[in-house]
Amino acid sequence: MMPRVYLDYNATAPLLPEALEAAVPYYTSNWGNASSIHRQGREARVAVEEAREQVAQLIGAADARDLVFTSGGTEAVNLAIQGYAFGNRSRGQHIITTQAEHPAALDTCRALEQRGFDLTYLPVDGLGRLDPEVLAGSIRPQTILLTLIHGNHEVGTLQPLAALVEVAHVRGVPVHVDAVQAIGRVPLDVAAFGIDLLSLSGHKFGGPKGVGVLYIRAGLAATMQAIVHGGHQERQRRAGTEDVPSVIALGKACALMSQRLGDECHRLEVLRDHLEHVACSRIPEVRRLGNSADRLPNTANLSFAGVKGEALVFNLDLLGIAVSTGASCSSRQGVPSQVLAAMGVPPETSEGSVRFSLGWGTTDEQIERVLDLLPPTIQRLRLLSPLP
Amino acid sequence: MMPRVYLDYNATAPLLPEALEAAVPYYTSNWGNASSIHRQGREARVAVEEAREQVAQLIGAADARDLVFTSGGTEAVNLAIQGYAFGNRSRGQHIITTQAEHPAALDTCRALEQRGFDLTYLPVDGLGRLDPEVLAGSIRPQTILLTLIHGNHEVGTLQPLAALVEVAHVRGVPVHVDAVQAIGRVPLDVAAFGIDLLSLSGHKFGGPKGVGVLYIRAGLAATMQAIVHGGHQERQRRAGTEDVPSVIALGKACALMSQRLGDECHRLEVLRDHLEHVACSRIPEVRRLGNSADRLPNTANLSFAGVKGEALVFNLDLLGIAVSTGASCSSRQGVPSQVLAAMGVPPETSEGSVRFSLGWGTTDEQIERVLDLLPPTIQRLRLLSPLP
Repeated sequence: MMPRVYLDYNATAPLLPEALEAAVPYYTSNWGNASSIHRQGREARVAVEEAREQVAQLIGAADARDLVFTSGGTEAVNLAIQGYAFGNRSRGQHIITTQAEHPAALDTCRALEQRGFDLTYLPVDGLGRLDPEVLAGSIRPQTILLTLIHGNHEVGTLQPLAALVEVAHVRGVPVHVDAVQAIGRVPLDVAAFGIDLLSLSGHKFGGPKGVGVLYIRAGLAATMQAIVHGGHQERQRRAGTEDVPSVIALGKACALMSQRLGDECHRLEVLRDHLEHVACSRIPEVRRLGNSADRLPNTANLSFAGVKGEALVFNLDLLGIAVSTGASCSSRQGVPSQVLAAMGVPPETSEGSVRFSLGWGTTDEQIERVLDLLPPTIQRLRLLSPLP
Repeated sequence: MMPRVYLDYNATAPLLPEALEAAVPYYTSNWGNASSIHRQGREARVAVEEAREQVAQLIGAADARDLVFTSGGTEAVNLAIQGYAFGNRSRGQHIITTQAEHPAALDTCRALEQRGFDLTYLPVDGLGRLDPEVLAGSIRPQTILLTLIHGNHEVGTLQPLAALVEVAHVRGVPVHVDAVQAIGRVPLDVAAFGIDLLSLSGHKFGGPKGVGVLYIRAGLAATMQAIVHGGHQERQRRAGTEDVPSVIALGKACALMSQRLGDECHRLEVLRDHLEHVACSRIPEVRRLGNSADRLPNTANLSFAGVKGEALVFNLDLLGIAVSTGASCSSRQGVPSQVLAAMGVPPETSEGSVRFSLGWGTTDEQIERVLDLLPPTIQRLRLLSPLP
């Protein structure tokens, strides 16, 4: 049997073998609690702080102490938005976001609305971008935060981040960037962009599940509220025994990505572009969704006329190819993609869309196999269920 | 060099080798996102649900769907208390706890006070127990929750749980049990005790760090609010990609404990009692803290007159023995133990106290080594810093 082809890296990536190798000793021999004062504890503490430096280097944070380890990207996004909102409520209750966010941010914003905050969900253009002028028009004296995704999880669109941050900062509004899909895939430097808060996840680019990071610019930390209370861990910003092995594995993945990012970015882009180009040449009536210029190098979102995306996912799965319709966080819900709707994609196009997301384990041979199997599968599905 | 003796299982336990073995395939080959609909996703989902059954069996939950995986014991405690409090605020704002809780519960209660809730911190007796009559006298019509630790992290005292739950239930007050130190060490059946909410942690008894569980009795789930918003995971009760390998490892550790609990409980109790008995016979002026009858089988808290606990921890560490002063969650803070203060232990006794906590890797030989090295260490410390 052929090994399966996994093209669902935006849902989760396999752990880099080097990251697992780095973590295993922290399961088998150095199992200490990083808050313990004996030798096992101190060894774990040193390793956690080394990992924090490795993450800081990947995202361009000058001071690793500005990083908070969380249980994942979702918790990081929650801590950024809830933590900043509740901690700065006395300054204003207006928060700006877009209609094309991940559920981690959207649902957190909706929860804040129920607690009395005033949310503005800005429209995006047909490519998924927020227009800086639209942003400028939405800022009020009561606005305390802009939160937006960089590197959309469904279509890969990158926001014009420098321009957006500038517009927000001119009006004194700090910016949270949900970089869960961007980190480890495109260069992103918090200092260069002047980013105030940035969330990342381990498992999208080769680190483990169950660990993420929130970067908090030094000046903001004192104003933020924790959402998980208890021990003094993470400088009082996030309680709970540190998940030492996962943190070590994340640090290792970040260190590897710091070295490989340029090459890997290029390699994935070439593979992804080849996949898109050949698929579009071999299959009639395909539409590429999202921005073809500024986007994640690993993501393609293609809509096949007359085909249900879910049926295509199931049929490719039977052929040994794993792809996805939109976000896995909502893929069991059967609801249409909110991101595509925000981009003005009509429902029939949205229903025919499938996301191909590549990563460190993706090879030329795998892409060729997909290109061999995809056209006949589309043809068969179209014959079974022709357009009305 | 002699291998080190680790007697700090209440801070964290090494991962059971079988648990690591069970988890590794979910790092190396079955890395799917449990919410993905393709084969890798479905395989991860099946494994997560099997693990949930294994946890349910250990704690006597009839329906595994009543279990929510969290990032650890601290998040589980936070979700229990915050989730129930905010979800039931319209029914009342009074919450009862004790003065001998773990910081995860105490700090969450303090955060609720800042949000307008009314908290009662009940005293405990000299052994760390909450008197059911004291509880009965504190319940008001506005009381919505009792939260208390079963199996104190510092002294091991078990609460008279059946009596306390009965008192609360007679008055219609649900009970959250922080069982982070009790689960995997003493039999605890949520159905038999009628427990409404129960928090547990993976890494105290041989599961991994970074994963915990909140049990929510079926009738309560609908009234609870999430604290981490986003995806639909965990039946909308806790968003974020499931940490599949850690969940699998936790399930395996629970399955092993379901088999071994009786024997292991007895084995640890014999070792712990031997440690206490011989230490007290070989060393003058030792005081045992906590209840000697109903307590965790693995925990001893001894106070040595004229010795600073921290100095003893450092000196034993140099001899290759890891023990702790109180909770590791506050051990870097240099603050006196709140638990011992609540028990009425005088400061000079509290300062001389050290916690010895045993676990699955503890052997007879290790205990004998401690019994050889402890008396001369105490003697030396007493000579260096004699009582005034």
